[in-house]
Amino acid sequence: MPQPYDRVFNFSAGPGTLPVEVLEQCREEMLNCQGSGMSVMEMSHRSSEFEAIIGAAESDLRDLLAIPSTYKVLFLQGGASLQFSMVPMNLLPEGGFAQYVVTGAWGKKAVESGQIEGDARVIFDGKTSNYKSVPDLGSLAVEPAAAYVHVTTNETIQGVEFASDPSVAPPLVCDMSSDILSRPVTVSNYGLIYAGAQKNMGPAGLTVVIVREDLLERTPKSMPPMLDYRLQAKNGSMYNTPPCWSVYVSGLVYKHVKKLGGVAAMAQKSAEKSGVLYDAVDGSGGFYNGHAEKSARSRMNVTFTLQDDSLTGDFLKGAEEAKLSGLHGHRSVGGFRASIYNAFPLEGCKVLAGYMADFAKRHG
Amino acid sequence: MPQPYDRVFNFSAGPGTLPVEVLEQCREEMLNCQGSGMSVMEMSHRSSEFEAIIGAAESDLRDLLAIPSTYKVLFLQGGASLQFSMVPMNLLPEGGFAQYVVTGAWGKKAVESGQIEGDARVIFDGKTSNYKSVPDLGSLAVEPAAAYVHVTTNETIQGVEFASDPSVAPPLVCDMSSDILSRPVTVSNYGLIYAGAQKNMGPAGLTVVIVREDLLERTPKSMPPMLDYRLQAKNGSMYNTPPCWSVYVSGLVYKHVKKLGGVAAMAQKSAEKSGVLYDAVDGSGGFYNGHAEKSARSRMNVTFTLQDDSLTGDFLKGAEEAKLSGLHGHRSVGGFRASIYNAFPLEGCKVLAGYMADFAKRHG
Repeated sequence: MPQPYDRVFNFSAGPGTLPVEVLEQCREEMLNCQGSGMSVMEMSHRSSEFEAIIGAAESDLRDLLAIPSTYKVLFLQGGASLQFSMVPMNLLPEGGFAQYVVTGAWGKKAVESGQIEGDARVIFDGKTSNYKSVPDLGSLAVEPAAAYVHVTTNETIQGVEFASDPSVAPPLVCDMSSDILSRPVTVSNYGLIYAGAQKNMGPAGLTVVIVREDLLERTPKSMPPMLDYRLQAKNGSMYNTPPCWSVYVSGLVYKHVKKLGGVAAMAQKSAEKSGVLYDAVDGSGGFYNGHAEKSARSRMNVTFTLQDDSLTGDFLKGAEEAKLSGLHGHRSVGGFRASIYNAFPLEGCKVLAGYMADFAKRHG
Repeated sequence: MPQPYDRVFNFSAGPGTLPVEVLEQCREEMLNCQGSGMSVMEMSHRSSEFEAIIGAAESDLRDLLAIPSTYKVLFLQGGASLQFSMVPMNLLPEGGFAQYVVTGAWGKKAVESGQIEGDARVIFDGKTSNYKSVPDLGSLAVEPAAAYVHVTTNETIQGVEFASDPSVAPPLVCDMSSDILSRPVTVSNYGLIYAGAQKNMGPAGLTVVIVREDLLERTPKSMPPMLDYRLQAKNGSMYNTPPCWSVYVSGLVYKHVKKLGGVAAMAQKSAEKSGVLYDAVDGSGGFYNGHAEKSARSRMNVTFTLQDDSLTGDFLKGAEEAKLSGLHGHRSVGGFRASIYNAFPLEGCKVLAGYMADFAKRHG
């Protein structure tokens, strides 16, 4: 059945699918946004119109994640990759150390950037088991004196995810780029949460940082201004021109998620969507194999391979023809990756599951 | 006469007006871009579709500015403000020094960030004359041993601009955020040019860097990866997810400017537009006064005040009613600022000039 606007089912790992309703509103407001006589892209970021837009975005995000008033919300640029450096530059004092839990490719990049800035220590590395699991943080040698402990709640490449909020004694810093807004979180478990927008929130080019106020005191005096959390907080994310369009679209997504029932509804939907695909893998009698251990399976990125790897190309070719786009796995894992972020429709998972069953029947 | 889509004449200093044709194309392609079955915001940045988009943007920008093949073009994030730090972090070696020409508020910020990173020296500061002029670089104490000399070709707050490409012996680093693409430039005069997109190119969130390849060798070994020009160049601006939407829109603007006749046509249009406004100032018999010295007048930001400052509020109120938006001057200069970047229509300048004459008649 053709999709509206002849759209495909977009399983891309990010940037990923956005809600059709949000795109329709973007289209509607493109030449004249809410009576301002201009596009959001043309508005002064100091105008009352844009201040209302960024204010609503923050307020809606606070509602969605129940962010305590003791946390600042920053709208920054540079993606998670810049946070890999900004976190230690701001939070890791001279002579201190940080601990990193590495459950996949992104955690590995995070600690590598941390080591450029200071004493960043790995206390778990899932590499030996090819990143198929996540540890119980209670079982790790977390040191109370650590400046922070860093985790990645969802790893997009390997498709492993913490099933619930981790918890440790030192401030917990979390890369939540790929599963933010997909379930309720207890923000007070974390010292700092960061997330690139382009998976569950909006367009690439926006990075959200949620940081406990007292941690802002750690920022050293002499910092590149744009990388200074404290300065960004003091300026309400407008030390310079913010990525206005990405803030606007993300704000529309926040309103959309609220309308759908908030993050609790997203959690239910994510469980259902990923369940359809994992059932297709598990019910294939070994024709398909999941990459992650069942206890660590990601609800965002379903990674699986074929028993007979030689069929991988055929699978992907047929999928593209069926308008199932972006399913190729990362080269480090192989096989397939179905990324099914918040805005990805359940129907797309059902269509893929049907295609998987049909493909297995034809080649099994 | 009402504008299409009931749009205003948007004199905002940035983000600024975009071409209506570009916005119409954005609207048209919002739900399904060029048959991809998705929005640009939803595309994997590794997809062939997006690679074509970013490749065309680079190629069109190279055409427009006649960028030699010995220069790299980078599409980064963080605005000019992040470049204020990245330039010295990459180009100013331990033990070296850089020289800064400060002709306004942005140059001042640039040198302040430079001083955080190393020995950044001011060789001209227009502050004593309230930033009304630009110097002849030949008259300054430029030292051949300087790691680089930094200039800001156009200052948006004071409205002063270099009338032609400056030239010095050391590598010239230029913040061209507010006048890039408004006239032909000799790129080989510069070691590095940077520009935030949100004035003459596209939406906020994209920063273009044009850098001579040999300068990339200066980048120190141990750098935050996202701030490392050499690494960004090596990865074709895709070390991580680039600001895809802003690249796309800027790419459409590049094509639009090419269609209109390129930067030579933009130079002619800018001279005509700014001429209409400066004539309105100069012909007012002292009712209006230009801020900048005539030799340094910006073609992008026309700054002027009223002889009788008490009328400023009335002027702005009437202007807003006439759909002339964003004319208030920066508090450090006062009065008015008409920012008339590439996409701002000549007609808007004529309407403003008419309003100015009428206002002078009523209050003169």
